[in-house]
Amino acid sequence: MIRAGIIGSTGYAGQDLVRLLHHHPEVDISFVSSQSYSDKEYSEVFGNFYEIMNIKCINTPENIEELDIDVLFTALPHGITSGMISRKALDKFKIIDLGADFRLKDVEVYEKWYTGHMAKELLKDAVYGLCELNRDSIKDTSLLANPGCYTTCSILAMTPLLKEGLIDKNSIILDAKSGVTGAGRGLNLATHYTECNESIKAYKVAAHRHTPEIEEQLSYAAGEDILVNFTPHLVPMNRGILVTAYANLTDGVEYEEVKEAYENHYGSEQFIRLLPEGIQAETKWVKGSNFTDIGFTIDERTNRIIVTAAIDNLIKGAAGQAVQNMNIMFGLRENMGLEYLSPFPI
Amino acid sequence: MIRAGIIGSTGYAGQDLVRLLHHHPEVDISFVSSQSYSDKEYSEVFGNFYEIMNIKCINTPENIEELDIDVLFTALPHGITSGMISRKALDKFKIIDLGADFRLKDVEVYEKWYTGHMAKELLKDAVYGLCELNRDSIKDTSLLANPGCYTTCSILAMTPLLKEGLIDKNSIILDAKSGVTGAGRGLNLATHYTECNESIKAYKVAAHRHTPEIEEQLSYAAGEDILVNFTPHLVPMNRGILVTAYANLTDGVEYEEVKEAYENHYGSEQFIRLLPEGIQAETKWVKGSNFTDIGFTIDERTNRIIVTAAIDNLIKGAAGQAVQNMNIMFGLRENMGLEYLSPFPI
Amino acid sequence: MIRAGIIGSTGYAGQDLVRLLHHHPEVDISFVSSQSYSDKEYSEVFGNFYEIMNIKCINTPENIEELDIDVLFTALPHGITSGMISRKALDKFKIIDLGADFRLKDVEVYEKWYTGHMAKELLKDAVYGLCELNRDSIKDTSLLANPGCYTTCSILAMTPLLKEGLIDKNSIILDAKSGVTGAGRGLNLATHYTECNESIKAYKVAAHRHTPEIEEQLSYAAGEDILVNFTPHLVPMNRGILVTAYANLTDGVEYEEVKEAYENHYGSEQFIRLLPEGIQAETKWVKGSNFTDIGFTIDERTNRIIVTAAIDNLIKGAAGQAVQNMNIMFGLRENMGLEYLSPFPI
Amino acid sequence: MIRAGIIGSTGYAGQDLVRLLHHHPEVDISFVSSQSYSDKEYSEVFGNFYEIMNIKCINTPENIEELDIDVLFTALPHGITSGMISRKALDKFKIIDLGADFRLKDVEVYEKWYTGHMAKELLKDAVYGLCELNRDSIKDTSLLANPGCYTTCSILAMTPLLKEGLIDKNSIILDAKSGVTGAGRGLNLATHYTECNESIKAYKVAAHRHTPEIEEQLSYAAGEDILVNFTPHLVPMNRGILVTAYANLTDGVEYEEVKEAYENHYGSEQFIRLLPEGIQAETKWVKGSNFTDIGFTIDERTNRIIVTAAIDNLIKGAAGQAVQNMNIMFGLRENMGLEYLSPFPI
Repeated sequence: MIRAGIIGSTGYAGQDLVRLLHHHPEVDISFVSSQSYSDKEYSEVFGNFYEIMNIKCINTPENIEELDIDVLFTALPHGITSGMISRKALDKFKIIDLGADFRLKDVEVYEKWYTGHMAKELLKDAVYGLCELNRDSIKDTSLLANPGCYTTCSILAMTPLLKEGLIDKNSIILDAKSGVTGAGRGLNLATHYTECNESIKAYKVAAHRHTPEIEEQLSYAAGEDILVNFTPHLVPMNRGILVTAYANLTDGVEYEEVKEAYENHYGSEQFIRLLPEGIQAETKWVKGSNFTDIGFTIDERTNRIIVTAAIDNLIKGAAGQAVQNMNIMFGLRENMGLEYLSPFPI
Repeated sequence: MIRAGIIGSTGYAGQDLVRLLHHHPEVDISFVSSQSYSDKEYSEVFGNFYEIMNIKCINTPENIEELDIDVLFTALPHGITSGMISRKALDKFKIIDLGADFRLKDVEVYEKWYTGHMAKELLKDAVYGLCELNRDSIKDTSLLANPGCYTTCSILAMTPLLKEGLIDKNSIILDAKSGVTGAGRGLNLATHYTECNESIKAYKVAAHRHTPEIEEQLSYAAGEDILVNFTPHLVPMNRGILVTAYANLTDGVEYEEVKEAYENHYGSEQFIRLLPEGIQAETKWVKGSNFTDIGFTIDERTNRIIVTAAIDNLIKGAAGQAVQNMNIMFGLRENMGLEYLSPFPI
Repeated sequence: MIRAGIIGSTGYAGQDLVRLLHHHPEVDISFVSSQSYSDKEYSEVFGNFYEIMNIKCINTPENIEELDIDVLFTALPHGITSGMISRKALDKFKIIDLGADFRLKDVEVYEKWYTGHMAKELLKDAVYGLCELNRDSIKDTSLLANPGCYTTCSILAMTPLLKEGLIDKNSIILDAKSGVTGAGRGLNLATHYTECNESIKAYKVAAHRHTPEIEEQLSYAAGEDILVNFTPHLVPMNRGILVTAYANLTDGVEYEEVKEAYENHYGSEQFIRLLPEGIQAETKWVKGSNFTDIGFTIDERTNRIIVTAAIDNLIKGAAGQAVQNMNIMFGLRENMGLEYLSPFPI
Repeated sequence: MIRAGIIGSTGYAGQDLVRLLHHHPEVDISFVSSQSYSDKEYSEVFGNFYEIMNIKCINTPENIEELDIDVLFTALPHGITSGMISRKALDKFKIIDLGADFRLKDVEVYEKWYTGHMAKELLKDAVYGLCELNRDSIKDTSLLANPGCYTTCSILAMTPLLKEGLIDKNSIILDAKSGVTGAGRGLNLATHYTECNESIKAYKVAAHRHTPEIEEQLSYAAGEDILVNFTPHLVPMNRGILVTAYANLTDGVEYEEVKEAYENHYGSEQFIRLLPEGIQAETKWVKGSNFTDIGFTIDERTNRIIVTAAIDNLIKGAAGQAVQNMNIMFGLRENMGLEYLSPFPI
């Protein structure tokens, strides 16, 4: 059994990770830690665990190098994990970081969008854990940077188009919509029930931190540096991300060629579902599961492609992908503990 | 492997049953049938099954006696299943009926609240499948009447109080609140999004068909015929039932005695969770799971007890309990295929 | 024109009051004050006022006796208003308090459920402003205690039944359901979007502070001290309160007699609508308006009456009733500034 | 007083129109008609009107030329109004059509996106009633084509940019999000509560009928034919439309120039609110009102502008704009009966 510790277990992503690991046949949870709820029964914090998991939250471990585990999951605000880990820790166990600290290779870009980086020397060891794109590197790393939610959905939607040269690389517009769990469990007027219920808005327009992460990965796909417009919206629902992506098609590109590109890249992926012609992605069909659904339409009048992609932001966009990465890193069946269908309607 | 057929597989309860059976390690789905979607891919009707289950809906079988299966699940409007089944069918395979046809023993009561009964001669064979209360009879039956959603929650909440004589038997008031899946997938102005969103109402006041079902079962618990007030409400959410129950306490009854009664009856039940003092049931902690959560408070000022009980109406209130009953009927581990925690927030 | 000041203008009730007063043909808003947003444009706090009302929030006035206004509205947490007002202030202008400080006549009861009272000497001057029941006293008072939201709905539902002796006075059970604005604008995990969306729960069972307020008023109606069970629930919607009330009928009471009682008491009330037989109150039909809708059903099987009553908690349950009270106190047409229909669906 | 008749009064737009006209100081409602509810009390169909408006729905008038009214509002599925009206009717009274029949000048485009046109000879008389853009023509017409909801919001957002040559005319992408009332009151699985709650999807991608309407009007603004991408999304909320628009900026265009363009066009418009720098439109601040809120951001990295615009789809997007048009056509104060602030939170 894999002994797993979870630091930051009482945020939404942390909690969904604890749930998935609890059901995982090859994992034993060694500890769950929490800054806010240390010494509290985990089931007092999350009533769904009542009578299921009798474990107390511990305080964040002071020296993680002393932990006797096989894998450490960290789900923390940016800047904290990088101040906590070390090469010595990485020699002892694997680390899967659900935060932003190791997602960007370009430290300048990181420091521009975030803050000063605390562990630059480890950046080169980190592997960006978008499973379907980096499977081989994931196998061998000890330091896994689990991608962001918007980014997972956006990158998976656009990569085949860029790799196959089917679109104008500088025409990408990503209009993204997220449920409110994306904003976390911290209290904030913007996510107070009566402030976001029954309304929709864009936020952090042209300024969201997932932008450089998307751009870095899509630049790899494009083979050159590209910029995108990424606009997140807050939707009055608990879970789910929908990305509606727009791009100008390369001259002469038609439906079949696009379809083939997606099939070549994702046809054998068990967690990516390419929807039949005319069907667009809807968050309800992936909610509660680790799937990414992708549909697209070509508008011949404007010669643009419109791609829709949907994920559950807490699963494929966080905890589920973390488990998928763990499975790859430990040589397990990649879908172990992740085979759930979306319950519907939920 | 148990070969299972599902008639009425494209309603919400039917679909949740298909999902649970698909994940069940000891079940093979032989067929799914549907009046409305026959000959359609199941995954066209429910996109969550896309690329997971490639099976077409068949038409409702004309002669069920010819089915070569081990168990038949029926999830149909009242009156249809009873017109379809026969002793001969029951000799060939087990039947678990998620509808109302075999829930009431008293055929006069059935005909008063519903309509003429089509299979009176089979009524005596039917076992009311509230697992925690009738486990022994369930083991031996071929005809299982799976309880209603409101009823499951109401009966589990009140039974220990009645059995132990802790309350005035004729003082029970059940104020119940349900998510909109309880009304099914059929189109109706009352469940049109913009008609029920952002509003709450009572409906079928003093006239809901779950009333006699609750009364019959609670009368068994009380040892005498009792009547209750049962008022259902429609809540703007997808899933979940909360029952807030009121009763006058027998003189002198105190907290500890009530607590003991619940523990004696349910302490070893894995799908009933008795909440700590001061904690009331919330639907969010059971949504997506087969659990029933029960909390209670004694109001010493009025000498009444207030009990709160919560279930997922499609799981413990329908498909989950049907699987639990199947497990009992086939001698499997009772929680097989039902061990899921509620994902939260969902 | 009536010069009005509003202290506590940036809570939800305060803001709805500012909106109603802004539209009121006989009112000039002199100032709006706020602890949290002093010196901020009101329209920065509430974007609906953008370009409509250019007024800055001032700090809470230190000495209200110096205010040069005709009426002061206070919408503050309990205990603050009573520490702020004085006889001298009451001699200068009228005060309409939307808080709890002057609602209970019995100071012992107040101090048991709330805290020490800061202005006991003014309690006898205060009039409980449930317009339809106390219209005459409201006309002459300078200190108006505006009722609570749950209480307005509960008291209006039950008063005619008690006054006419149609029910057993000690059998009243009030099962109340409220939208989330009832919990205010202050941040709290319980009202974080993803914690209360898609779930329903009871809270403060047998312990909610509106209980003694309901009991005091219903005791006046009954002519003797009575106790009730009152259970509030949190419903995932913005606005609206539904009270489902239960009581044992006095022997022999029938539908017509009950109907007549309601008509005698409320038949000429423009803000109370008695629903036709068989129709129950729904919050959606009163949302955004000052109406109270009341329906009822008699269950002959149990000899109980079930009454449903609905209001908009921020209007008839707070700001609207405050304006209605102001209209009465200033001799204006009682529905001035309150004639709005509910927009639907909203 | 203006005598008004409403055909199609029991859809959502029709009903909101009846509400606004009921409150309008210069209008008497002569009749409300309905195919589905003829001979029913209007307040039985919409409980918000209970005890407010005692009027029965009549059947759709057979010969509208005989109506003795001043203005006829039609809120019907496309193709019906054009089959009903005539020059003779237009000579007798004014017609304001909330449907699509007279919105497009180009009959070929109409017949491509809709169906054969029944009254081509009247098309040249019709004026497209986007009040802020066509005020002068509206004054003089008898046949007013009230714009669509998505179109109103999209056109208002983009017109100043096109008129001032600030953007690349063929780079416009309109990503639109609507509440569910936009889909009307007709029953449909897509708008069944539990099918659209807690999910978001795009629909009619590159195929929505509002596309040619937007293009025709924006082509007038651009001075040449232009095409756009328009993608509607269904958001789980009752009301509100948000349009997030993207376009490539003309070289050298900066924030101040854009701001000036909007101010020049809309600075004196009472129903358009230009938001301060950094603020984006949110549907909650316009819900229940006739306002259009517009915000924008320039992304210097990509040289694109992102515009956000929000309206209440049933008010500025339908009934409110119809009343605004009526006010203009009858020489009344343009905001008469439309001065309401958005109630919040609602």
